[in-house]
Amino acid sequence: MATSSLAPPEVPMELHAGNRDRLLTALRAHLSATASPPRGIALLQGGEEQTRHCTDHLELFRQESYFAYLFGVREPGFYGAIDIASGQSILFAPRLPPDYAVWMGEIKPLPYFKDRYKVDLVFYVDEIVQVLQDRFSQHGKPVLFLLYGKSTDSGNYSKPASFEGIEKFDTDLGTLHPILTECRVIKSEMELGLIQYANDVSSEAHIEVMRQAKPGMKEYQLESIFLHHSYRYGACRHCSYTCICATGENSSILHYGHTAAPNDRTLNDGDMALMDMGAEYNFYGSDITCSYPINGKFNSNQATVYNAVLKAHNAVISHMQPGVKWVDMHKLAEQTILESLKNEKIIHGDIADMMTRRLGAVFMPHGLGHLLGIDTHDPGGYPEGLREAKGARTELLADHKRT
Amino acid sequence: MATSSLAPPEVPMELHAGNRDRLLTALRAHLSATASPPRGIALLQGGEEQTRHCTDHLELFRQESYFAYLFGVREPGFYGAIDIASGQSILFAPRLPPDYAVWMGEIKPLPYFKDRYKVDLVFYVDEIVQVLQDRFSQHGKPVLFLLYGKSTDSGNYSKPASFEGIEKFDTDLGTLHPILTECRVIKSEMELGLIQYANDVSSEAHIEVMRQAKPGMKEYQLESIFLHHSYRYGACRHCSYTCICATGENSSILHYGHTAAPNDRTLNDGDMALMDMGAEYNFYGSDITCSYPINGKFNSNQATVYNAVLKAHNAVISHMQPGVKWVDMHKLAEQTILESLKNEKIIHGDIADMMTRRLGAVFMPHGLGHLLGIDTHDPGGYPEGLREAKGARTELLADHKRT
Repeated sequence: MATSSLAPPEVPMELHAGNRDRLLTALRAHLSATASPPRGIALLQGGEEQTRHCTDHLELFRQESYFAYLFGVREPGFYGAIDIASGQSILFAPRLPPDYAVWMGEIKPLPYFKDRYKVDLVFYVDEIVQVLQDRFSQHGKPVLFLLYGKSTDSGNYSKPASFEGIEKFDTDLGTLHPILTECRVIKSEMELGLIQYANDVSSEAHIEVMRQAKPGMKEYQLESIFLHHSYRYGACRHCSYTCICATGENSSILHYGHTAAPNDRTLNDGDMALMDMGAEYNFYGSDITCSYPINGKFNSNQATVYNAVLKAHNAVISHMQPGVKWVDMHKLAEQTILESLKNEKIIHGDIADMMTRRLGAVFMPHGLGHLLGIDTHDPGGYPEGLREAKGARTELLADHKRT
Repeated sequence: MATSSLAPPEVPMELHAGNRDRLLTALRAHLSATASPPRGIALLQGGEEQTRHCTDHLELFRQESYFAYLFGVREPGFYGAIDIASGQSILFAPRLPPDYAVWMGEIKPLPYFKDRYKVDLVFYVDEIVQVLQDRFSQHGKPVLFLLYGKSTDSGNYSKPASFEGIEKFDTDLGTLHPILTECRVIKSEMELGLIQYANDVSSEAHIEVMRQAKPGMKEYQLESIFLHHSYRYGACRHCSYTCICATGENSSILHYGHTAAPNDRTLNDGDMALMDMGAEYNFYGSDITCSYPINGKFNSNQATVYNAVLKAHNAVISHMQPGVKWVDMHKLAEQTILESLKNEKIIHGDIADMMTRRLGAVFMPHGLGHLLGIDTHDPGGYPEGLREAKGARTELLADHKRT
């Protein structure tokens, strides 16, 4: 029987108010630096529930990440606004039909959302034009700063808010995205607390998987144990990403576990397992991979590879500190792995030469790591003026996704 | 410790070949009856993997249901075709880039899909125009019958297949959808076998939830137990729908459990639970609801309501047989419930009068049931010529979704 020391924490909604303050500070600084009028409204549209193809099957909704960052709203169909001059925050809730109460649940009154999400004002979505015109037009039509920009991980563009009557406002598509994205890079203490908790849940769940794994089981049974431990004891309904429960040769497939490679192999005695799984709590995620022999005992080849990775991991951790370049840490990891493989006579030759030829990428085709937050690959980290760092990082990761 | 007698069955891919045969028979009969040329190609496009909003977070893919019905393909990015004259079935697989093997898994050769999915021919998606022109143009440009029609449950339209070069063919948007939809209504023995298995899994998982439920737990912990039992022991990675784990007053909300009402109440001594959960196996689903007191003992009010529903349930089952009208069974259920409530002096008056005024809809706002298959609300069942039945059913369900 599984046991757990987890205690799902109350979610501090002040966290999202803190995120809004961070955005306000950054936006005001930007407007000041560009000698622009110190006003306007940052307006975001939350996600909508989606049906699966043409059916009425509703996918379990998870809020769009930028909207979650600023407002923490779990429900679909919202808009959110922040008035740059006053700092006021406004939520616009969907007006639900009366039979929603029979089918979907209690129709919450507006003050419920004001209290829950710690915003200054709440209206209905169908009031958005009137509210913005009546309350925020003392300096003429307010400029709406909309979220539009490219995700450097997916290549997809965020969809700017749209609503009936938006043509009555001036809109700005270029300002908000880069500024908000950089806000997300440095986490507050409250954000770190949630990320820590999600990682605590995942650690415990990984250990439970490790305890139960044995030859003859299926990979998906390990996934199920992880999901169950995270949800039952950790209150994590979502994972940060689809569980990667790879054993045997599957362990070499970085993003194994999806529908076309669905964790369906039978575990053998002598297999290594590579378990890459992370739970999510109140939007904040985790990302933990661990490798171990299914039968509980490393053979010598397994130990060699494991120790090479461990040595690289420890080398990077001991060198990490403010001011150190990411790219140098990536190279340190590659070099440490190559040295270990050379010591074990798995590869031969001059390490400096191997580094020049990027041989390390054969053994570590992915990046050293990535930012973690509301997205597993949290955005940002390429501030203007640091093109050199971005270029170097991009080169290292050329033709690769981040893992 | 949970135990299980479940043994996930091999999936018979002949099932989908059987579904294709059913479609062929129906299409040929239709073309014959309308004196149309007995040829053309039914062409469907499978689903694509979706990222979450602008991020690179990939949602776990589940195949589009019509495509799953005909081809059983679990992977995204496919097209499938059936040549009406010859009966040949053709799959078109996406051509994957070489680094797919590093990131996503082994690139399966075309014969793998031919063998796995029991089709006659397999090509790449980028060969679709050439294949259709070279092999199926002996009578001139083949007509492509594309899937386009409205889901009566969601009001959404299915998206017809599209690909570069489709303008080189004649296309027909009206024929395939109603015919294929009606094919899905009557299930084959193999389909029934999978539906039975999914229901067996769900039954066992419901019983496990019932065993473990007790005051002080959270509703989501019951959901987690169900999901875990279905996946770990039943190999069911998907559910037919989001789990509804409703206790106390939540039990009166028909589709509780979604993100805005997320199974987060604490169970109290004295609560009734309404658990509406169903696992899915190889696309085929289940849908089981059971109600019981969390502390294991009905109080007299709970027993009254439970028995009223049970009596209606048993009345319908004992009257069901070929030729009986659905609407009459719905009315029988309503009348039986009203009679029970009158006997218990919860309502007063003339039952016939209550029936005329549709008082039953207050206590049973949903339909009596629905078709079940690859979708939880499986489509079809409104064959042409039965408008009367449809009208009556629609009236009964006026302003309501099916549950």
